[in-house]
Amino acid sequence: MKNFDIYEGNVTSPKGFQASGVHVGIKKKRKDIALIVSDVLAEAAAVFTTNKACAAPVKVSQENIKDGKIQGFVINSGNANACTGDQGMKDASQMVDTTAEALGIAKENIIVASTGIIGVVMPMNLIVKGIKMAATALNYDGGLDAGEGIMTTDTTVKQLAVSLKIDDQIITIGGIAKGSGMIHPNMATMLSFVTTDAKVEGAFLQKLLKEVVDDTYNMITVDGDTSTNDMVAVMANGLAENNEINENHPEVEKFIEAFKYLNEYLAKSIVADGEGATKFIEVEVVNSQTKDDAKLAVKSVLSSSLVKTAFFGEDGNWGRIVCSVGYSGANLEMEKVDVFLSSPEIQYQIVENGQGTNVEGELLAKFLKRKEVKVLIDLKIGTEKAKGWGCDLSYEYVKINGAYRT
Amino acid sequence: MKNFDIYEGNVTSPKGFQASGVHVGIKKKRKDIALIVSDVLAEAAAVFTTNKACAAPVKVSQENIKDGKIQGFVINSGNANACTGDQGMKDASQMVDTTAEALGIAKENIIVASTGIIGVVMPMNLIVKGIKMAATALNYDGGLDAGEGIMTTDTTVKQLAVSLKIDDQIITIGGIAKGSGMIHPNMATMLSFVTTDAKVEGAFLQKLLKEVVDDTYNMITVDGDTSTNDMVAVMANGLAENNEINENHPEVEKFIEAFKYLNEYLAKSIVADGEGATKFIEVEVVNSQTKDDAKLAVKSVLSSSLVKTAFFGEDGNWGRIVCSVGYSGANLEMEKVDVFLSSPEIQYQIVENGQGTNVEGELLAKFLKRKEVKVLIDLKIGTEKAKGWGCDLSYEYVKINGAYRT
Repeated sequence: MKNFDIYEGNVTSPKGFQASGVHVGIKKKRKDIALIVSDVLAEAAAVFTTNKACAAPVKVSQENIKDGKIQGFVINSGNANACTGDQGMKDASQMVDTTAEALGIAKENIIVASTGIIGVVMPMNLIVKGIKMAATALNYDGGLDAGEGIMTTDTTVKQLAVSLKIDDQIITIGGIAKGSGMIHPNMATMLSFVTTDAKVEGAFLQKLLKEVVDDTYNMITVDGDTSTNDMVAVMANGLAENNEINENHPEVEKFIEAFKYLNEYLAKSIVADGEGATKFIEVEVVNSQTKDDAKLAVKSVLSSSLVKTAFFGEDGNWGRIVCSVGYSGANLEMEKVDVFLSSPEIQYQIVENGQGTNVEGELLAKFLKRKEVKVLIDLKIGTEKAKGWGCDLSYEYVKINGAYRT
Repeated sequence: MKNFDIYEGNVTSPKGFQASGVHVGIKKKRKDIALIVSDVLAEAAAVFTTNKACAAPVKVSQENIKDGKIQGFVINSGNANACTGDQGMKDASQMVDTTAEALGIAKENIIVASTGIIGVVMPMNLIVKGIKMAATALNYDGGLDAGEGIMTTDTTVKQLAVSLKIDDQIITIGGIAKGSGMIHPNMATMLSFVTTDAKVEGAFLQKLLKEVVDDTYNMITVDGDTSTNDMVAVMANGLAENNEINENHPEVEKFIEAFKYLNEYLAKSIVADGEGATKFIEVEVVNSQTKDDAKLAVKSVLSSSLVKTAFFGEDGNWGRIVCSVGYSGANLEMEKVDVFLSSPEIQYQIVENGQGTNVEGELLAKFLKRKEVKVLIDLKIGTEKAKGWGCDLSYEYVKINGAYRT
């Protein structure tokens, strides 16, 4: 049983957050500017792409988050403002300035994000106009609009809210995310924005976010490419009036559990919407010597083109799974490795002590027609573990990413 | 001008090497057992897969090469003898024993290799029979037969020979290789066998092979998967009667140049035969701070599914190239990076100082219809460089690897 409730909600589900999403014309039809704003200055934390070719808004946001206080997020979709040189930096700053002025909040308390085509200078006339429109449209039920405003090739809005009691106060955490492999026509971007009305200590929030990102967003892979624009950011505005949450708070574990659940859900939603994906694949590695070993092995399996095409082909190709674990860099003893394929209802052991078992091919073929498959790999040489999520590699992926001009 | 001659030849081109390739029935129609044997005990060197799930023949060969002396290679195709447990080790040893007995050479002087399906116990009756047949078929022109004997999904035999003069003696180096992405139905294997009649110091040969493998075979990528069975092995039997080649030999550079050329040619042949590949792509990174940085960047570009599908789609998507350099881990300053696409005849600069240039789309689209494209990335922060080779990612790749049962 979970210590929290889960419901269809988003960044405006917690108290004291307004949001909006509007269409100004950066994209043809869909909403392309989003705002998420706290009624009061909030403790904030963010994790950014490690790509050295990071985009201008990432640089501006990294500067603004330094003091741990943020009051608003401004996001545009349709243009990533990446590889745009000095002009890009000016444009990202102008987005911040325009937002600050329209909302009457301080410039240094704004995070800016962009997603879309790269290498093209931003249509600033439209963007400035859009931010002003979005400021006017702000409201306490605007989270879904904001969720739509950050979408690019996404086919679904990704959103969730959870609530729980801490210090007898109801606390809510809400989030929206975007990402589906790759942005037409240039590159993948993953964005996630989380809000909570919980009162949380700033340093604790940053530490928690970093840990949670490592176990969730950093454990998903669609095509192995890391975008220039990836960003996960959170604001905690304290309006729930609980005692400040930090490592010593008696109910901190409840908060961590709910916060992690929400982020894991958003991360998995991105993979499930992976471009051209026909299967959702969870990989768990258990009983490794270190957690890093487990993560290396999980990512190696999820990133292997051979494993991904095998799942697309609905083939229980254990050789490819074992092979990708073998070259992952994780410490292992081949003659101990067990591999299982499972669903909530049934489990097949396909490798025992490094060798294939004789699961009947027809049974396995039938099982692999499922949309969701779990791969469990037991290294049997330690006690650590890790989990990750990915998808298969289909004709459609190649079509979307290789032949989009036709 | 090169200091050596290049010709259509192979492992029997150098003096004193016999080879053979026969069909015994491990595969349906094509040759499946190959032997390469020196008339005299040779200095030898080998580099093996780093995959921890390495196959039984790799383990047996690693033991036998320890003293640096080898006289024969025995190879079967159709079954990789990987993930076959204790039985696999026994079978690899039996291949060695059978070869030693049939040829009258010492067991510990034999390298054994296998390629094909994994996780299936070897059909040893056939293999023993095949080795005996191959021993009978050995001859001084058998290199091409051996080249055919090691093929799996390869569509072409990969072979080459080069000759040069050292100490006024004609020295020949010959090689055969196999690999085309992935072995139906399980995994990629890359095998390369090189022979030379040059007299070469054992320690120098091992060092040279390691360096050359790092710059050639280790710089190709078809799908980023590292097989359980990869192996590059060389025998130098000394029959050319030159003075022993080592680091102090006055003509050592000529030998290194020819040896490297041959191995680079074989490595590139594997990529050119990549499963479903429609383009051959060379990536060179120059002016990096370290050679490792250059290699990281080269491999990152060649392994990116987004870059690979862009080339398949004949799209000069510089954003994906820059992005994959950005997340490679190589040190760089984005605002200095230049990127060029080129053929021997023409060169287009598509990125200057981290930003896209305005090469006319139609010109680029026409250029990208070429079968071979070179990507040159100038980091402009150092003096090191590296080169690598890969291919595009096509519908056909997904079909071969994902839907082979249909």
